[in-house]
Amino acid sequence: MTTRIKGVLSPVVTPFDSNLKPDAPRFVRHCQWLLDNQVGLAVFGTNSEANSLTLAERMHLLDALVEQGLDASRMMPGTGSCTIEDTVQLTAQAVKHGCAGVLMLPPFYYKGVTDEGLYRYFSEVIQRVGDARLRIYLYHIPPVSQVPISLALIERLLKDYPQAIAGVKDSSGDWNNTLAMLEQFQPHGFDVFAGSETFLLETLRHGGAGCISATANVNPAAIHALYAHWQDADADERQQALNAVRSAFQKHVMIPAMKRAVAHWSGIDTWAGVRPPLVELDDAAGRQLIDDLQALKFEMPGMRA
Amino acid sequence: MTTRIKGVLSPVVTPFDSNLKPDAPRFVRHCQWLLDNQVGLAVFGTNSEANSLTLAERMHLLDALVEQGLDASRMMPGTGSCTIEDTVQLTAQAVKHGCAGVLMLPPFYYKGVTDEGLYRYFSEVIQRVGDARLRIYLYHIPPVSQVPISLALIERLLKDYPQAIAGVKDSSGDWNNTLAMLEQFQPHGFDVFAGSETFLLETLRHGGAGCISATANVNPAAIHALYAHWQDADADERQQALNAVRSAFQKHVMIPAMKRAVAHWSGIDTWAGVRPPLVELDDAAGRQLIDDLQALKFEMPGMRA
Repeated sequence: MTTRIKGVLSPVVTPFDSNLKPDAPRFVRHCQWLLDNQVGLAVFGTNSEANSLTLAERMHLLDALVEQGLDASRMMPGTGSCTIEDTVQLTAQAVKHGCAGVLMLPPFYYKGVTDEGLYRYFSEVIQRVGDARLRIYLYHIPPVSQVPISLALIERLLKDYPQAIAGVKDSSGDWNNTLAMLEQFQPHGFDVFAGSETFLLETLRHGGAGCISATANVNPAAIHALYAHWQDADADERQQALNAVRSAFQKHVMIPAMKRAVAHWSGIDTWAGVRPPLVELDDAAGRQLIDDLQALKFEMPGMRA
Repeated sequence: MTTRIKGVLSPVVTPFDSNLKPDAPRFVRHCQWLLDNQVGLAVFGTNSEANSLTLAERMHLLDALVEQGLDASRMMPGTGSCTIEDTVQLTAQAVKHGCAGVLMLPPFYYKGVTDEGLYRYFSEVIQRVGDARLRIYLYHIPPVSQVPISLALIERLLKDYPQAIAGVKDSSGDWNNTLAMLEQFQPHGFDVFAGSETFLLETLRHGGAGCISATANVNPAAIHALYAHWQDADADERQQALNAVRSAFQKHVMIPAMKRAVAHWSGIDTWAGVRPPLVELDDAAGRQLIDDLQALKFEMPGMRA
């Protein structure tokens, strides 16, 4: 890729049928709706239940998007796994399809591993994929992975692989960490994406690339509007409105809450389903969520997935 | 299976060749050596780097053991993964081969999940495998998985699946938790295995089934001897000798340390290799380990893997 992906991306929620099998046509429709709202496709992220999917399911869903003509230059599939071989296979598929990049978790089973071990993992993946088009966005999400990606590791990887190491999604929730990345690495062409739209405005004010946020699944147009108009006088007001919507979701576990909202606004009940170990919202929580969102005049215009 | 597996099992370390591919013949030889020393085969555990292996690699290695005539009634392969489908596939293979049971991690990507979600996960696996021969040993290892298996979850699973839910490996390192399992569930035929030989004698004194311990890879005969002679007068002395050997390993990261010891006593250097994100012991640490072990008159008689 010559042009780097920027802006707002969504870790796309994965629809299941009543047997909890991925529903590829519905997935494609939701992705198309996100693209129509100027939001890029970070498919197979944490919010996609990617690690609850098999390798074959993930590869089939990505193939389906490309076969249906969705723009691969707007895609950043998650490909990191505990196993180098699996990560290489998923990453090579994304590169072959011309995806803008891949979002790569560190191997997340062992805890307390060294930067040296993580360096070897990413280095091995880059060498085995062996394709100059590869662009890796490191996925720093210590609250879930419990395996942080340190500033020292980024520095070492960037030095040795300045082309392949393209940026980061910082889902630490720690603004000081995002700021350190923005100051140390963004000036060298390492694109920093905030892990939620809560930090979008601040990230843009410090030269960052955008955000990759769960809520972009349900509130794409308004989040993109802040990205497009961040230098306007009403930017702080827009940020506050985004935060209010996010807060309504954050009263619940995010993934089932977002799927409940999609189910409600699309009229498709099966959208609410999640794979174990996640659990769908119960009726009372679901009603509270919809009430809270309606009180904010929240809508999902054009949603018919 | 009519007879439940008991005693000492080893989460078998996985040998790699110089390209970090699993070395099946060497794996079979190490497993045979463990069986010769009365130690059962909990292949594909944490110490086996199982989550750094692909599904195909794990299935190929288990097939190799069975094809080479090793006794499946002494095997308890690890089959838990983040994905129900993968867990079902690995578990069904183990049941088909007549393995004594399977050691099952909970799905370990999402943290803070509910007991309801974990119940649905295990329940779904049991129903999809759909084989009366299935025996699941729940794998409680919160320091690594970060997803505990609570007493309340065990109680619920045991009530609904009294045949399939056969026991637990408690690698919490918290003796009070092991004791609670021994008191509440062992009397109902739920076999409690300590997660290390450090707790072997206490576990047996409270009616437990044995232990599944990393160090059984390198010190199998002595650990089994404590199991066989735990009511003898010298049992505490044996326990202390086991603890001293374990302490020499625990000065280092366990997995590379055990592989370094196997490399030393087998004379096969490639045994020391680990997959990223783990890192092999450096020369100084390796020398210290071997010196410490030799000072304890440690040996691996008959090791020629």
